[in-house]
Amino acid sequence: MRAVVYKEPFRVAVENAPDPAIKHPNDAIIKITSSCICGSDLHMYEGRTAAEPGIVFGHENMGIIQEVGAAVKERKVGDRVVMPFNVACGFCKNCLGGFTGFCTTVNPGFAGGAYGYVAMGPWVGGQAEYLQVPYADFNCLPLPEGTENEADFAMLADIFPTGYHGAELAGVRPGESVAVFGAGPVGLMAAYSCLLRGASLVFSVDHVGERLDKAKEIGAIPINYDEGDPVQQIKNQRSGNGVDKGIDAVGYQATKAGSSAVGGEQDEVPNIVLNQLIDVVNPTGALGIPGLYVPSDPGGVDENAKRGALSINFGRLFEKGLRLGTGQCNVKQYNAYLRDLIIAGRAKPSFVVSHQLSLDQAPEAYTKFDRREDGYTKVILQP
Amino acid sequence: MRAVVYKEPFRVAVENAPDPAIKHPNDAIIKITSSCICGSDLHMYEGRTAAEPGIVFGHENMGIIQEVGAAVKERKVGDRVVMPFNVACGFCKNCLGGFTGFCTTVNPGFAGGAYGYVAMGPWVGGQAEYLQVPYADFNCLPLPEGTENEADFAMLADIFPTGYHGAELAGVRPGESVAVFGAGPVGLMAAYSCLLRGASLVFSVDHVGERLDKAKEIGAIPINYDEGDPVQQIKNQRSGNGVDKGIDAVGYQATKAGSSAVGGEQDEVPNIVLNQLIDVVNPTGALGIPGLYVPSDPGGVDENAKRGALSINFGRLFEKGLRLGTGQCNVKQYNAYLRDLIIAGRAKPSFVVSHQLSLDQAPEAYTKFDRREDGYTKVILQP
Amino acid sequence: MRAVVYKEPFRVAVENAPDPAIKHPNDAIIKITSSCICGSDLHMYEGRTAAEPGIVFGHENMGIIQEVGAAVKERKVGDRVVMPFNVACGFCKNCLGGFTGFCTTVNPGFAGGAYGYVAMGPWVGGQAEYLQVPYADFNCLPLPEGTENEADFAMLADIFPTGYHGAELAGVRPGESVAVFGAGPVGLMAAYSCLLRGASLVFSVDHVGERLDKAKEIGAIPINYDEGDPVQQIKNQRSGNGVDKGIDAVGYQATKAGSSAVGGEQDEVPNIVLNQLIDVVNPTGALGIPGLYVPSDPGGVDENAKRGALSINFGRLFEKGLRLGTGQCNVKQYNAYLRDLIIAGRAKPSFVVSHQLSLDQAPEAYTKFDRREDGYTKVILQP
Amino acid sequence: MRAVVYKEPFRVAVENAPDPAIKHPNDAIIKITSSCICGSDLHMYEGRTAAEPGIVFGHENMGIIQEVGAAVKERKVGDRVVMPFNVACGFCKNCLGGFTGFCTTVNPGFAGGAYGYVAMGPWVGGQAEYLQVPYADFNCLPLPEGTENEADFAMLADIFPTGYHGAELAGVRPGESVAVFGAGPVGLMAAYSCLLRGASLVFSVDHVGERLDKAKEIGAIPINYDEGDPVQQIKNQRSGNGVDKGIDAVGYQATKAGSSAVGGEQDEVPNIVLNQLIDVVNPTGALGIPGLYVPSDPGGVDENAKRGALSINFGRLFEKGLRLGTGQCNVKQYNAYLRDLIIAGRAKPSFVVSHQLSLDQAPEAYTKFDRREDGYTKVILQP
Repeated sequence: MRAVVYKEPFRVAVENAPDPAIKHPNDAIIKITSSCICGSDLHMYEGRTAAEPGIVFGHENMGIIQEVGAAVKERKVGDRVVMPFNVACGFCKNCLGGFTGFCTTVNPGFAGGAYGYVAMGPWVGGQAEYLQVPYADFNCLPLPEGTENEADFAMLADIFPTGYHGAELAGVRPGESVAVFGAGPVGLMAAYSCLLRGASLVFSVDHVGERLDKAKEIGAIPINYDEGDPVQQIKNQRSGNGVDKGIDAVGYQATKAGSSAVGGEQDEVPNIVLNQLIDVVNPTGALGIPGLYVPSDPGGVDENAKRGALSINFGRLFEKGLRLGTGQCNVKQYNAYLRDLIIAGRAKPSFVVSHQLSLDQAPEAYTKFDRREDGYTKVILQP
Repeated sequence: MRAVVYKEPFRVAVENAPDPAIKHPNDAIIKITSSCICGSDLHMYEGRTAAEPGIVFGHENMGIIQEVGAAVKERKVGDRVVMPFNVACGFCKNCLGGFTGFCTTVNPGFAGGAYGYVAMGPWVGGQAEYLQVPYADFNCLPLPEGTENEADFAMLADIFPTGYHGAELAGVRPGESVAVFGAGPVGLMAAYSCLLRGASLVFSVDHVGERLDKAKEIGAIPINYDEGDPVQQIKNQRSGNGVDKGIDAVGYQATKAGSSAVGGEQDEVPNIVLNQLIDVVNPTGALGIPGLYVPSDPGGVDENAKRGALSINFGRLFEKGLRLGTGQCNVKQYNAYLRDLIIAGRAKPSFVVSHQLSLDQAPEAYTKFDRREDGYTKVILQP
Repeated sequence: MRAVVYKEPFRVAVENAPDPAIKHPNDAIIKITSSCICGSDLHMYEGRTAAEPGIVFGHENMGIIQEVGAAVKERKVGDRVVMPFNVACGFCKNCLGGFTGFCTTVNPGFAGGAYGYVAMGPWVGGQAEYLQVPYADFNCLPLPEGTENEADFAMLADIFPTGYHGAELAGVRPGESVAVFGAGPVGLMAAYSCLLRGASLVFSVDHVGERLDKAKEIGAIPINYDEGDPVQQIKNQRSGNGVDKGIDAVGYQATKAGSSAVGGEQDEVPNIVLNQLIDVVNPTGALGIPGLYVPSDPGGVDENAKRGALSINFGRLFEKGLRLGTGQCNVKQYNAYLRDLIIAGRAKPSFVVSHQLSLDQAPEAYTKFDRREDGYTKVILQP
Repeated sequence: MRAVVYKEPFRVAVENAPDPAIKHPNDAIIKITSSCICGSDLHMYEGRTAAEPGIVFGHENMGIIQEVGAAVKERKVGDRVVMPFNVACGFCKNCLGGFTGFCTTVNPGFAGGAYGYVAMGPWVGGQAEYLQVPYADFNCLPLPEGTENEADFAMLADIFPTGYHGAELAGVRPGESVAVFGAGPVGLMAAYSCLLRGASLVFSVDHVGERLDKAKEIGAIPINYDEGDPVQQIKNQRSGNGVDKGIDAVGYQATKAGSSAVGGEQDEVPNIVLNQLIDVVNPTGALGIPGLYVPSDPGGVDENAKRGALSINFGRLFEKGLRLGTGQCNVKQYNAYLRDLIIAGRAKPSFVVSHQLSLDQAPEAYTKFDRREDGYTKVILQP
């Protein structure tokens, strides 16, 4: 089959790769109809991880079941399905607790597996024609037949649940005010999720004009951090008050004001968003942190950053009695409910999608998305 | 001052009543700007309670602080405020637990107090020019100065939080499907609250055309129970499935199909909604029951109903593993958050208001509201 | 293999039955070391259900894995395991929500499956030498090797989690007071669980002396309802107050004061415990109802009872703002945690076990347990 | 009256101070029977805060109501009461949410007030003969008459709830394993609370022999961090696994292995406990952090520490998907429930009390407690 293969930093190619096969009775093979490029693919693409050449990318996968193993019970050939980016078994202690992003079965020695991602287990990515999915009854979320809402449902693999996870980690409740740092795809999904959950005020902090425009379109209040301290800007709009809750949809590649839209290591200040959140969230509030932080970053700005140690204003955090939650989204906790919002016409997450391209266009898409050129925000590859 | 006084079943009058005064250092006196007539006022008006002539009605009160007692700290003369219908102290065990609808301080020997309501303590109602409010720092919710959103804010005294309470008791979460029985003011607020909280599908069950129209306007799916078993109608729209959650916004005066719009004792089937909810909610689901049930109803349809004993399909309830929550709304748990949704323009509960009248029009308003004539749905009296 | 087979009301026999085999790649075959007789087996034994002759009883099963299907991943031959009485798949909507007692996969057309129980699916019971367990990775809870704590671990199949479920449904928190109705095995486990969770006061209501003695031994306060209204007895010990929470560990075969220890249909008052709980629990409190209620009871005391319709003091329930939760225990939610309490020596649920017998002694055990003769409280059959 | 007055670093004196008086109608005056010295008093005593000479210490106060203001309703002269160390109003947004440690009314410009503590508002401490308590209905927890359990009830002012708060912030549930860092009074109370809540295994980490002995007495497993990396020691006892939850009862004055029992700035490593917790808690776990961290510490080990900025292994924290909660205990959320455990004889927190002394012995007590001499662990002053 054809697949998007990582060659070296800043280069992927579309090449032939082995066809996946049923290896375990609980497996299914999916014929991919949509597989998205994720901002976290860029971490590998940019050489900011230990990813080796040869890896097939793609953890946001959707398609039609082509074949099922002998043990698969409820999913059938022909079912239209979307898979959480996390690979999970459904029966380990973490999965039982709902923490399917931390499955201990599918990636021995580690808590958490994913398709096509370095250190996340042996699972080949889905930016390809076909995909092997283990524990198919658990990992395949069924969708309505047909082709309707294809781009919306594709968002269920990762970014819609991941944005929603930010709201959940922060415990966003109806009527609350929230500051969401980052208005990339996940940040927009986080802001959108807060509004879906009934937040009264959502601030979206970024410095890319198109993103801030999108944020405004969905009902958030855009805050451009190139125009001044975002904490102060928010407090100014709140008569000096902060907000009830905060979400970090940026992660360790956070950049300071005035850096280029794309970022770049020289502009990175990995703790800036965390400390701004500690500032802007009111005492007794909570922080949801779906934005990625890593324990090892070869490209980190200094020795501490390289090992994921950040200087946090912990005294202030404590004085305010803040709570925080972190970690990869447990997609399985939310995806069926978010799907039902799409089916009912109450959510339309595809508003973040900028491009729907063929698999062959992947190399160009990676290049442009990485540079944020030509409005590349969220790309769906459709083999 | 002028006040709406209960005279006898089916008759109120606007009469002179004693001006309220500061009786305790934590009291405040409110000059009423809006006081609504509530469906539960009709229980007294129709003689379905032990209410004695002479009682001043009105538990949905809003206005301007006219005077404060010596101990009042944060609320000031001139503040625009709305009061929960529950009178509460803020420091008894129930109030501390958030159950301000069950305060044990303000109505000795009973858990729960209210303004202008039989058996709910000595608190005079607010369908009048002035109102005495105890524990003013606790009971007065401050509002933005001015007159904007008057009708929206007036809904914060009771029906918006009460409808929301239904959603909370049922634990309605984003993406879930809900059946709301009753599309009167509280039922509409319950459906509206479910949608604000992110429900994917909300069914509104009633048999009054105007109510069902309103339900549709806000995005719910109307179900007319005069047109067939509502449980079956809902399941038909769900490919045979029920719903995740259910809300009873009807209470003990539930009527069977084909009864007149107004109801009437002869048509009452007090357990019908509860058993329909047990039927329509899926196993593992939950029921929120803000609709009123009473332990003593002189007008009950039979001996059991007179003492509030209802035949419940408890075997089915258990088999399905359902949970349920009941009781008066603890307005204080929600009102500040719902207020912020109004201020932010994300909620506009005044859509249920049919009439804004002067105090003198109260007698006519009671008559017509009781008969559901001329579109009387929700009346605000504005002295 | 040898197995306990239901022959007719009040008669079981130990007979040859077909050896179970791996029928699905996710199956395992267990060599049974302990299988308990449950009070709910007596419902079938007494002919109070639709159970047909020929059914092999036994849903509280523990043993050693003898064989595993090709898809089983984490469980191995030789593992010592205990199975929840609920059969569950781990991937349907209900299982994903933690409601493994309401699995929709294992018993098509119904929510919930169990071993050896009428209407709970095709799963043969474990009062036998061997047992077929589907979804073995999900349904087999691993235990420490060896034979230690055999009787304690056997309680993990049903009654310890079921008692705990009562506390969970009622939301029992540290420092609270609780009334537990019923001090049979499940009631004792419920009282024990409340104390493990930090309840300050637990009342155990029953009228069998030995049970009340056991309750006292574990630190509960025994209340004998043959000695007067149990609600009044509890309030007398509480200076007139009720309790924070209540648990019904009795179910629909509740009996009135003065009935024989064994009960009998003539003494049944199926709603008595529910209404006593409504009386004794304080406003804002909650009721956990693990005790069984059924939608169809051929032996019910009247027409309503036969169809599971009970007269509930719903007006009082509402006035008090009570919440309640019902249904079969979702054993999988608790069993690993309760196991760890046993391993750590902090829980010893085998205190309820009265007899450990061979399989051949099952007929006598059923007879005596049904009559509560000779101290038969909780029997473990050990093939 | 006589009172313990701060004079300069490492010196307090017992001196005359003005008698408190009713200043507000909601006030009460308490005749102190017990007032404890808290580890956080030592922060001031050692000059590690901005506390000015003249301040009367004492935030753990208990006594008899001597006088009440005109607005006080439920509390009466003669009532035996214990006060949370947090001063709170009961009606601000934070108090309504249960966050009484972050009251915005009692200490204008800041969220949170306390008696006798720098920057915590104008409230005079209770290591004295009398104490002024505002919002007496809210702040005075009534106790049984008499003198029984005096030392136990005194623990309700701060350390028992504060330890319990650690367990609550970490969400400790029955059957879980927990590592508690610190076995001083708060750490012991945290370990004790975990066990009361049903934890299966509790590790207590310290390096003071007496403390570790106490931990063992109550059923925790002592870990002496002078004998090796505590994380490794715990994992060794867990077959390589970590624990479900962690509690930091140490705070910013954490010391490294081998430091003297008393500590001292030279041995401080303010982030050591936080990073050890991140190491020892399993993925998906949670950290409760009642141990104090401050945004400004004149005696901090370096520039970052002086402003409360700590180097946290945030990449690891995120990778594990950990959650954490911080902040002063909201005593009012727990104290009535913990009181009821004491009354029922199910909790006996006075096991941490080492000395019950007269007010005049305060200077010596401070000196010895600060040096951890002569077994000074927890001192109650009884005027």
